[in-house]
Amino acid sequence: MKARVTVTLKSGVLDPQGKAIEGALKSLGIAGVASVRQGKVFDIEIAARDRKQARAALKQAADRLLANTLIENYDVKLSG
Amino acid sequence: MKARVTVTLKSGVLDPQGKAIEGALKSLGIAGVASVRQGKVFDIEIAARDRKQARAALKQAADRLLANTLIENYDVKLSG
Repeated sequence: MKARVTVTLKSGVLDPQGKAIEGALKSLGIAGVASVRQGKVFDIEIAARDRKQARAALKQAADRLLANTLIENYDVKLSG
Repeated sequence: MKARVTVTLKSGVLDPQGKAIEGALKSLGIAGVASVRQGKVFDIEIAARDRKQARAALKQAADRLLANTLIENYDVKLSG
């Protein structure tokens, strides 16, 4: 089963890397960019009995390793 | 307008960071993880006349800064 876990900073948490990219895009002359926030994405191939079991394993992976839940949100999407 | 640009490594390109995460998940005992590949996500707030103009600016941003198109693919999603 394929899954995508997307990890993004919670709103309110400063994102200096996003700010730097925002500045770089502006100095490249890309029109209209108002803000940029950077996050991470994990494409995971997982073997599981069913979608429920896969989702449980992925939730555990995100909580324990992929995301810092103090400052980050995550979202799990299963496909196939 | 809100947009999300997702940048992932092309298949065939080695991803040592993904491999390390894969190993870490296995040693945490998360069941069934077969492979992990890591990518980046950019949440961009962009001002544009219409979706077509926004899409063109985002394509330019991805080609020129956000992705290294030699080794990475990107995907642009517009919402709202």
